[in-house]
Amino acid sequence: MADPSLVLTPHVRQQLADWLAEDLGRGDLCAPALAGAQGQARWFAKAAGVFCGGVLVAPLFALLDPAVSVRLLVRDGEPVETGQCLLDLQGPAAALVAGERTALNLAMRLSGIATATAALVARLAGTGVALADTRKTTPGLRVLEKYAVRCGGGINHRLGLDDAAMLKENHLAWAGGVAAAVVAVRAAAPWPARVIVEAETDAEAIAAVRAGADGVLLDEFSPAALNALVPRLRALAAEVSGSVVLEASGVHPEQLATYGTTGVDLISTSAPMTRAPWLDISMRYTTDWV
Amino acid sequence: MADPSLVLTPHVRQQLADWLAEDLGRGDLCAPALAGAQGQARWFAKAAGVFCGGVLVAPLFALLDPAVSVRLLVRDGEPVETGQCLLDLQGPAAALVAGERTALNLAMRLSGIATATAALVARLAGTGVALADTRKTTPGLRVLEKYAVRCGGGINHRLGLDDAAMLKENHLAWAGGVAAAVVAVRAAAPWPARVIVEAETDAEAIAAVRAGADGVLLDEFSPAALNALVPRLRALAAEVSGSVVLEASGVHPEQLATYGTTGVDLISTSAPMTRAPWLDISMRYTTDWV
Amino acid sequence: MADPSLVLTPHVRQQLADWLAEDLGRGDLCAPALAGAQGQARWFAKAAGVFCGGVLVAPLFALLDPAVSVRLLVRDGEPVETGQCLLDLQGPAAALVAGERTALNLAMRLSGIATATAALVARLAGTGVALADTRKTTPGLRVLEKYAVRCGGGINHRLGLDDAAMLKENHLAWAGGVAAAVVAVRAAAPWPARVIVEAETDAEAIAAVRAGADGVLLDEFSPAALNALVPRLRALAAEVSGSVVLEASGVHPEQLATYGTTGVDLISTSAPMTRAPWLDISMRYTTDWV
Amino acid sequence: MADPSLVLTPHVRQQLADWLAEDLGRGDLCAPALAGAQGQARWFAKAAGVFCGGVLVAPLFALLDPAVSVRLLVRDGEPVETGQCLLDLQGPAAALVAGERTALNLAMRLSGIATATAALVARLAGTGVALADTRKTTPGLRVLEKYAVRCGGGINHRLGLDDAAMLKENHLAWAGGVAAAVVAVRAAAPWPARVIVEAETDAEAIAAVRAGADGVLLDEFSPAALNALVPRLRALAAEVSGSVVLEASGVHPEQLATYGTTGVDLISTSAPMTRAPWLDISMRYTTDWV
Amino acid sequence: MADPSLVLTPHVRQQLADWLAEDLGRGDLCAPALAGAQGQARWFAKAAGVFCGGVLVAPLFALLDPAVSVRLLVRDGEPVETGQCLLDLQGPAAALVAGERTALNLAMRLSGIATATAALVARLAGTGVALADTRKTTPGLRVLEKYAVRCGGGINHRLGLDDAAMLKENHLAWAGGVAAAVVAVRAAAPWPARVIVEAETDAEAIAAVRAGADGVLLDEFSPAALNALVPRLRALAAEVSGSVVLEASGVHPEQLATYGTTGVDLISTSAPMTRAPWLDISMRYTTDWV
Amino acid sequence: MADPSLVLTPHVRQQLADWLAEDLGRGDLCAPALAGAQGQARWFAKAAGVFCGGVLVAPLFALLDPAVSVRLLVRDGEPVETGQCLLDLQGPAAALVAGERTALNLAMRLSGIATATAALVARLAGTGVALADTRKTTPGLRVLEKYAVRCGGGINHRLGLDDAAMLKENHLAWAGGVAAAVVAVRAAAPWPARVIVEAETDAEAIAAVRAGADGVLLDEFSPAALNALVPRLRALAAEVSGSVVLEASGVHPEQLATYGTTGVDLISTSAPMTRAPWLDISMRYTTDWV
Repeated sequence: MADPSLVLTPHVRQQLADWLAEDLGRGDLCAPALAGAQGQARWFAKAAGVFCGGVLVAPLFALLDPAVSVRLLVRDGEPVETGQCLLDLQGPAAALVAGERTALNLAMRLSGIATATAALVARLAGTGVALADTRKTTPGLRVLEKYAVRCGGGINHRLGLDDAAMLKENHLAWAGGVAAAVVAVRAAAPWPARVIVEAETDAEAIAAVRAGADGVLLDEFSPAALNALVPRLRALAAEVSGSVVLEASGVHPEQLATYGTTGVDLISTSAPMTRAPWLDISMRYTTDWV
Repeated sequence: MADPSLVLTPHVRQQLADWLAEDLGRGDLCAPALAGAQGQARWFAKAAGVFCGGVLVAPLFALLDPAVSVRLLVRDGEPVETGQCLLDLQGPAAALVAGERTALNLAMRLSGIATATAALVARLAGTGVALADTRKTTPGLRVLEKYAVRCGGGINHRLGLDDAAMLKENHLAWAGGVAAAVVAVRAAAPWPARVIVEAETDAEAIAAVRAGADGVLLDEFSPAALNALVPRLRALAAEVSGSVVLEASGVHPEQLATYGTTGVDLISTSAPMTRAPWLDISMRYTTDWV
Repeated sequence: MADPSLVLTPHVRQQLADWLAEDLGRGDLCAPALAGAQGQARWFAKAAGVFCGGVLVAPLFALLDPAVSVRLLVRDGEPVETGQCLLDLQGPAAALVAGERTALNLAMRLSGIATATAALVARLAGTGVALADTRKTTPGLRVLEKYAVRCGGGINHRLGLDDAAMLKENHLAWAGGVAAAVVAVRAAAPWPARVIVEAETDAEAIAAVRAGADGVLLDEFSPAALNALVPRLRALAAEVSGSVVLEASGVHPEQLATYGTTGVDLISTSAPMTRAPWLDISMRYTTDWV
Repeated sequence: MADPSLVLTPHVRQQLADWLAEDLGRGDLCAPALAGAQGQARWFAKAAGVFCGGVLVAPLFALLDPAVSVRLLVRDGEPVETGQCLLDLQGPAAALVAGERTALNLAMRLSGIATATAALVARLAGTGVALADTRKTTPGLRVLEKYAVRCGGGINHRLGLDDAAMLKENHLAWAGGVAAAVVAVRAAAPWPARVIVEAETDAEAIAAVRAGADGVLLDEFSPAALNALVPRLRALAAEVSGSVVLEASGVHPEQLATYGTTGVDLISTSAPMTRAPWLDISMRYTTDWV
Repeated sequence: MADPSLVLTPHVRQQLADWLAEDLGRGDLCAPALAGAQGQARWFAKAAGVFCGGVLVAPLFALLDPAVSVRLLVRDGEPVETGQCLLDLQGPAAALVAGERTALNLAMRLSGIATATAALVARLAGTGVALADTRKTTPGLRVLEKYAVRCGGGINHRLGLDDAAMLKENHLAWAGGVAAAVVAVRAAAPWPARVIVEAETDAEAIAAVRAGADGVLLDEFSPAALNALVPRLRALAAEVSGSVVLEASGVHPEQLATYGTTGVDLISTSAPMTRAPWLDISMRYTTDWV
Repeated sequence: MADPSLVLTPHVRQQLADWLAEDLGRGDLCAPALAGAQGQARWFAKAAGVFCGGVLVAPLFALLDPAVSVRLLVRDGEPVETGQCLLDLQGPAAALVAGERTALNLAMRLSGIATATAALVARLAGTGVALADTRKTTPGLRVLEKYAVRCGGGINHRLGLDDAAMLKENHLAWAGGVAAAVVAVRAAAPWPARVIVEAETDAEAIAAVRAGADGVLLDEFSPAALNALVPRLRALAAEVSGSVVLEASGVHPEQLATYGTTGVDLISTSAPMTRAPWLDISMRYTTDWV
């Protein structure tokens, strides 16, 4: 897996602190049982999958105690086997215990997404079609969950409402048609922002390309319908604006390979966010360590 | 379902604002296509389950525009059928569109948890044993996800590290045994805080009760083992401290009914958080409304 | 004094920064007079008492300048004499001066509470009855003021509205009686949360135990009344739920020893928060230091 | 008492929310016992004193529920008798209960300060000398506690390190004397900022006036010493800069009247912050209300 | 001017509160002189220009007091004459005075940007070439200053580092050439994100188009050089990717018209942010109002 | 230029983080092109002026990566020539690129203010009259922009509404005249707070001094009028309160030297904030560095 490059912005660091605060509340009641001890621990995968979240572990524990050291044995985006050791860490026991649950919850959720994404991406192997996510993400985790999709080999769709425009049925109705909607949005949007239109019929898709849309989301079209429509849209785009990105959605996982041959550029799905179980990971304290 | 009573603290309201900010970023690029329109929309369940998150909808949209009105047709904790209308809302289209994804993401995640919880609780019907959650929750959503568990008929375990003490293997090792650990924790904890000990063997469980633990988490015991152990622990507790709460964990869903007869008070599981799909809900804009 | 174990959560660190900001405002106008100097200073107790707040000094100054070093000569919870040196610190003068007032204000307030608590605890010596605090704390200082109580030898009551339930007269009225109130609260509360009932008459106390309360707060009972009531409540609890924690409140300091013989488990009082003067501490800059 | 004019800045409103969050934590466990009830309550003074904090009550409860209404029967700064009703309020019981403790803690602390201030101010009656506070305030409460001093008839000294400069012994040492220190500070400070010098000897006070200080804090001078020194300083100031504000500190309450005749302009003391008990106030729920 | 559609996100509202806090500090010392008065005021332009910032006025004052009402007489983006009345407002004097400076500072800065932008846009009239801004904006005001550019008739370039990629000389060096850099960025970026390359020579521009860049920033090319280069780039783009957006920068205002004929799509400039004076606006209190 | 002493409060550090977040948004899309490179860069002045903002550079990059090192070659407040190297910095390329724009935007704005201030101060050379700023500052940048004025040789007027009182026409109207307004404000203000009155006529100025104002702002008086008025006000102040600070405003830059001879103490102007262009500074990456 290539470097999926999560940028640890100050905002993400602040979120890590907020999440620690959520679990710690007014302080760990068990701290007095730790008696100032130093601890050592290892993380183990309890199922096979794709690991994600390792890059957050050291920054998270550093917020509790800079004396915690973390050694990653697996990089984010790498496949892991059941029982594989993922990382080890050591430092003041009070900090290890205080951060344990938050760190694991993050990594389990993110690894679950990466694992599910990788399974879907595998179904598209050889087609040249990319698998993209959506804006169905857990509130607060948008940036991290989209990072997990990249770790699983998928690509990201827009990050929010402000980095690309997606016009849906209701926008078109309020604006008075697709052409008017595209004009209105382009007039105020930053010029690099792509304008995408969601279409449910051939006519809508054609109108979108004619209106100069940068992308068209073809929702719930059959493979046969796409086989016929995609070449028409490509030809029309060549006349109008040079190119158009075509995206299919509403595709059942079982059908991914079939849709991979329809000529679309990408297939978007929320399944890794909404249907994937967390990857189970355990943190075991140890004394047999050099 | 009785009122599961989510308290909308100022902190939760602040989180709603943060989550809106995550999706909105620097603003909705599609806003110019809305042309000041008023909108109406309805939410529909796309699968059967238990609804949760309705109480957040009005407060969330109010952060965008106080002119949005929301009418709940289903209460949190109530079962819903596929296709059932859950709520309707109306107001400025810019606000409806800006809050749509965040509101749905929350409700879909929470309803997924409530639905999964209800299914597990149903397996314990008639046993008198409660189903409890754990601290495996999505970072940032602890309070809401635990509310969803209550909506599904489960009960909550401790909310964080500060409202009850749970001593695990490593605490006991660092403190020098279960008795020392319980003493150390009780010395500094608020008196109402219960002290729970996690045990993996009969000997550990017995030592925990002898040390005066308020609760014992019996992890990965077989039903047979529990049948033998539970009465011994009850008897010992009656001598030592009056009573003890006994909790089983590591129980496969298929075995819930069996464990429901072992005499434990509750069974804790993270499955509704870590394994449940989101309940699919759609928001449809409409013009056929009075 | 045993380790009263304050956990320096990220939240407390943020509060330290906020408190510095309160005093610094837009910056220390005297900074130009410091001319880049290095400084050394010592803290002295100007009265006898129990010290508290030392653990905050280094983290607080570190927020201003990591070059400040602090050496504690007295641990939190230890008694100090008038004139005793409590700590010394050195570093850039600008940081020492900027943090001085905030650090002293905290330590003086907390040491005042610890000192007053220790005096009350002394009155209960030999009785086996604990002295507990209440939720009457200065807004913003709940965690720290309760830590000061522990430093003075007291114990903490619940930390907030969310870690234990305390049903008062008005709750009982709204819920339709003590049994209904206890049932309603237990249904939604995390299972480890204790449910306590405040009683002002024998009948109320008995009803509370009968309803399965984990604790009963006996408010403004005379010692004689308690001598009669406590054994009845213990006996009843043994039948109903195994045990009950009995707490007296509304006790004048002069009467602590007397109440200490009534059989209650603890006596709660807000006096260390609401009536204790701050312990006077001065910070003196020095040049005679090696 | 004239209107002491607390400005409810957005910052203070944010603090009220933070303080509610401190008590509420993850939510009020007793809320289910309230069953959606409406409530009515009254506040009563349990001791005589000067009331302060009433202006915060409505804004605080409004953060919980805009349906709470508050009617103040006593204005901040007015004297109250034991048993006097201070205000009444009504609204959803859940909000009344959730805000009760925080509102009372604030008002009890602030009223305690106002009461103690008024007692000290009374000792200076007829002298024309003002009683001022210091920067010894509870962290987080600076603005509110200084408001309480005004409610008690005192005046405020500087609000922080940034609205006036106070040069102390160590500043003078680092800067190389009082003249150099005053010059350095004036060079960078906003021109309206007054520069005050703390003096412990006649020579220091004279040097301060000669250096053009706007004020001199005369610390721990005897009345006799002041009687002699004050006229000299006034005369010198008339030559140098027109006028100087003279302030005495380190004055025992018993001696206030005596110091009131020494010619100083004001006497500063931290006693209302560091030595005053809270004024006891109770909130009683009622059903006998129209 | 068409509606430039500023979305008032919760984040912008929070910034308004922060900016009020910056001016208010611990409260307005003049508030006691207002004696509870109601006030009326009007804003007047003291120079001709394009107004911007009106949409912020009501939300800003609402943070101080919901009783303030604002009536806009000019819409953002409209030209105004010297002496023209822009808006009137009324409400509690304390709120009017407390928000006056912050509201004016915002509107004066934003109107200055809008005015300067309009002057530059006028120079491009008839060319079909758009004028775009850059990321040179005042820290904290990015969204608002870019809104002001739209109000002046300009268009926005990317909003930050995360909504489009701009590869500069140093990126190309580190990545090992333009092709490698484009590949690396596309692999991790959301698919709708456009990738732009900054070029300083013909060779670099050609390499960028060949690498599939969506846009090329042609920095400090002469008009003659562009006349020759632009057609070559368009032709090459038609072969490679369908189209490319061509942007000139480093253009002196006097030369805008000339560059407008070179065939580029847009010209970007930071001049409205870095060189424009504020538009002077005064707020006058009045009593002659009905 | 002497040390203008910016205090880097925790609040300013938080602002730096917020400003980075504004540009970074969800992360730098170009980061993958950096391939873990280390970078070196230098800042160059692209015009002559007075540098300001250097002290912020290291703290800002430290928020992104503590491995960035910064070496200042010019101190804040020092004059720079076109082409002069201002500082060099090195560290992880990802951090250099992520902080570049924010750091430059700050320094360019602040240096523009310092440069403009220095030019105005030069016009007053030899007059002994100081040049002061106003509250017309960019929202969010008050403290930093006022620091830039000091770096340019100017002095600061009050920092906000809370460190000095300025009574304007409308205050006097609401309070019932200047005497009543001064009394009302002094009654509630901290004693060190100076009370200034804005006057537009001789009569108002005289009334202000008679009322004991500490300062009088003489707005839009001609030099001749000031020549006559200033001595009268000085004489009156000597009788009433010892001294008064006289300030002229509404002065055109061309007239500064003339106003410098009228006997006022200072002249205030917002020109450096509202009319000064940013000082252009570029950051160039380099590989020819030892």
